[in-house]
Amino acid sequence: MSRWARAFSTASSFLNNASMASPSLRQYSFQVFRDVPPLRQMRRQLVLDKKTVGFVPTMGALHEGHLSLIRQAAAENTDVFVSIFVNPTQFGVNEDLSSYPRTWDSDVAKLEQLNDEFARLGGDTGRITAILAPTSKVMYPASPPSSEVDGDGSFVTITPISRKLEGASRPVFFRGVATVCMKLFNIVHADRAYFGQKDVQQTVVIKRMVQDFHIDTEIKIGETVREHDGLAMSSRNVYLGNRRRSVGLVLYNALKAAENTYNSGKLARSDILHAANSVANQVLSEQQALSPSERALYEVDYISLADPDTLDEVESVDPAKGAIISGAVKMVPLEETKPGEDCGLGDGQVPVRLIDNLIFKPRA
Amino acid sequence: MSRWARAFSTASSFLNNASMASPSLRQYSFQVFRDVPPLRQMRRQLVLDKKTVGFVPTMGALHEGHLSLIRQAAAENTDVFVSIFVNPTQFGVNEDLSSYPRTWDSDVAKLEQLNDEFARLGGDTGRITAILAPTSKVMYPASPPSSEVDGDGSFVTITPISRKLEGASRPVFFRGVATVCMKLFNIVHADRAYFGQKDVQQTVVIKRMVQDFHIDTEIKIGETVREHDGLAMSSRNVYLGNRRRSVGLVLYNALKAAENTYNSGKLARSDILHAANSVANQVLSEQQALSPSERALYEVDYISLADPDTLDEVESVDPAKGAIISGAVKMVPLEETKPGEDCGLGDGQVPVRLIDNLIFKPRA
Repeated sequence: MSRWARAFSTASSFLNNASMASPSLRQYSFQVFRDVPPLRQMRRQLVLDKKTVGFVPTMGALHEGHLSLIRQAAAENTDVFVSIFVNPTQFGVNEDLSSYPRTWDSDVAKLEQLNDEFARLGGDTGRITAILAPTSKVMYPASPPSSEVDGDGSFVTITPISRKLEGASRPVFFRGVATVCMKLFNIVHADRAYFGQKDVQQTVVIKRMVQDFHIDTEIKIGETVREHDGLAMSSRNVYLGNRRRSVGLVLYNALKAAENTYNSGKLARSDILHAANSVANQVLSEQQALSPSERALYEVDYISLADPDTLDEVESVDPAKGAIISGAVKMVPLEETKPGEDCGLGDGQVPVRLIDNLIFKPRA
Repeated sequence: MSRWARAFSTASSFLNNASMASPSLRQYSFQVFRDVPPLRQMRRQLVLDKKTVGFVPTMGALHEGHLSLIRQAAAENTDVFVSIFVNPTQFGVNEDLSSYPRTWDSDVAKLEQLNDEFARLGGDTGRITAILAPTSKVMYPASPPSSEVDGDGSFVTITPISRKLEGASRPVFFRGVATVCMKLFNIVHADRAYFGQKDVQQTVVIKRMVQDFHIDTEIKIGETVREHDGLAMSSRNVYLGNRRRSVGLVLYNALKAAENTYNSGKLARSDILHAANSVANQVLSEQQALSPSERALYEVDYISLADPDTLDEVESVDPAKGAIISGAVKMVPLEETKPGEDCGLGDGQVPVRLIDNLIFKPRA
């Protein structure tokens, strides 16, 4: 049984049991919807009751980054809707759809804990009242979704932004993201929807989509949540293991070096990118000097210095506008592992693409 | 001053005067919106008041076909919203955007007459309460919209349906239609939206879009409204003039011949299309035999016999499903005109593309 099938058999048995409302089962503090009509009915009543809905779309595998967005949503709305859907159309034909972590039970447990936390806060905060965990058939009713660049289907495309940066490596990614978010936005009709700053290009694409298509939902961006040493939280981090996790911090450190250069007064692209590239090159040299059982190698996909609205590369930072420094690094599989080494889920053999970014704020 | 500029200067002066609410000016029976936020405010109140909204999107140049849809909308909803927007993205770079008729004053007059008619019906029918006449900048805020097939922008694409039939001749047409309808649907949040059967491929694309994107609006299709002799109403008919109008009826007659063949019990594509093509060929031969000052020539773009849901061509009609017979004919400019002849707007020199279709209903 594939991980996908396992995850959904768990979800399905959970849902069946819950719908039977057996008294021996724990009652959940939110409703779980696998289809649209009953969710719409709940949503309509919330409108009539003048409640507000904050929406946090996720692909599950919830971590502190998601929880931080949900807390923000609960602080700003009476009701929080969370969707859990691993969207096939944003994965290319050769990408990691099958290895994307699926963790329904622990996700639900984390959401329950959050509702406990919100209950302790009393009436000053909203709470999670709906989980949308649709099937692929619900999300793509007319035909199986295509992951081919030229594939047929019903899609939203936002260009040229979607071709830059992440889109250069992943040509169908933002088409998939925009398409599924349009569907989810139409289903939930949220007052506000919450996205993490970590996926900066996604935030730019979604904000543009909302503006261009007059979607009546305010987009709110939550700060990137990081581990104690600065590594950006990501559902994919579970595949890193200790060695690649520690080396993978190079991306954050490279971006911080660039930020320090900007903060020291420099504005030229060459100066700022030089600082980042120096860090990336030096760490790679150090790793290459180690033996295959000690080192973790990586490939830098890009380090970008771009306009915050268009993501066009800039030759120098306009201090009145600021900029975004972002990067992507691919941690390649470990060459040799040591006995007893913590190599992460997949034993260090799953390539892990890390992305991160920092915002250079405008300065006078 | 171009026709476009003229039309909008009229609209703009009307709107400025109306907003001044000068007592010497006629008070209109509906609100006119050129931007989204005030319309949203009105729409929200209608939700709270449990009113229903029927939406009729148009490009202006209103004729009996539109009025029929508005009557249907008023019969089924408390409030009817009509949009008037000539959407640039559904016209290809070499198509007839500039010659599309723009008739704000007469459109508004027709809508007023409809509201008078609805008032006479008393409380049994809704009425037109909002006109949305947005600027291009409101509809395409981020950048001027592209009409190039590979142009950048924020678009909805529904393939493969959009490449068939009309889409084969007009490659950006349904991308433009789907994109602008998604925007309008998001703005109006109608309970029901009304489209005419005449643009059958448009109805299939829009129904597919609504299904795939979970748009919470029911799509209703109104029957094609025809002139006394059967010519389908179209905003473009004003360019025909008497001679081309009379010859242009060939399309309807060809489709009727096909329908008679189906009704006589035949199901094979060859039989049904033969009936239609015979009519089209015979009328063309008759015209070619006339002198240039007497004849009107045309080119048949396609005559299609297709599945009603997918618009895939069928080899024989499934009697349980029925089929759609549709066609497009391009009336070319008149070669010679006679003194005093009614040649229509543009003096018979504007090519006019006519489309029409008939539905073959399922039979036992």
